[in-house]
Amino acid sequence: MNAYTLHPIGRVESPLTDRAAAPRQPDEGAPDAWLVFDDRYAPALEGLVPGTDVLLLTWLDRADRDTLTVHPRGDATRPRAGVFATRAPGRPNPIGLHTVHILAITGTRVHVRNLEALDGTPVLDVKPLLHERG
Amino acid sequence: MNAYTLHPIGRVESPLTDRAAAPRQPDEGAPDAWLVFDDRYAPALEGLVPGTDVLLLTWLDRADRDTLTVHPRGDATRPRAGVFATRAPGRPNPIGLHTVHILAITGTRVHVRNLEALDGTPVLDVKPLLHERG
Repeated sequence: MNAYTLHPIGRVESPLTDRAAAPRQPDEGAPDAWLVFDDRYAPALEGLVPGTDVLLLTWLDRADRDTLTVHPRGDATRPRAGVFATRAPGRPNPIGLHTVHILAITGTRVHVRNLEALDGTPVLDVKPLLHERG
Repeated sequence: MNAYTLHPIGRVESPLTDRAAAPRQPDEGAPDAWLVFDDRYAPALEGLVPGTDVLLLTWLDRADRDTLTVHPRGDATRPRAGVFATRAPGRPNPIGLHTVHILAITGTRVHVRNLEALDGTPVLDVKPLLHERG
């Protein structure tokens, strides 16, 4: 099958730098962070509104792409599951999906609440929430 | 910034072949479809359950990656918005995000309800629903 090339549109700026200590989910102590977009994408940000929630897609650049099964949440006492049935970062295409609350927008810098992504994580896309539910 | 390479893990099999006639959202007449995974990813599918909803990520391989603003829903009477404030397929990294209901699983073929993706669309990832809401 064909391969496709992702071009990051920005980066996460976050106090999270230690992968081992990073929270697994946003409600487990994830800090506020900045999404710093490349200036060329300023027009694509028009219409984003502070105070609203959006979906953020990132590239988990430190994840292992050869992982197909995991012990959920790294707990060896739990039986292995396929990665497509878990949110483990290691997977063939390690795309991170985060629901984030926009706190503020300053030019092409977007401040968001509770993001469980490491400092420097490439940003791929932003989408409004629509049919997703969980 | 670095570029990253996506390797599709499967393809959509769907009666939808005409881009112009394709529904924009799953509740606008999208047909049931099959997700046909490459055999090597069978272990990663373990734990997916018919009767449940999952998030499907696809690569919208026929989308225009240079689009930064659009008239929402292609309606020229509506003011232009940045693509990150819309679900328009054209965007710098055209990743499709779909909530799908699993109807059946046969080996590495997964039958899903109401998918607004064209026949042949590359599949990138599957994730359980968690915090997403809309």
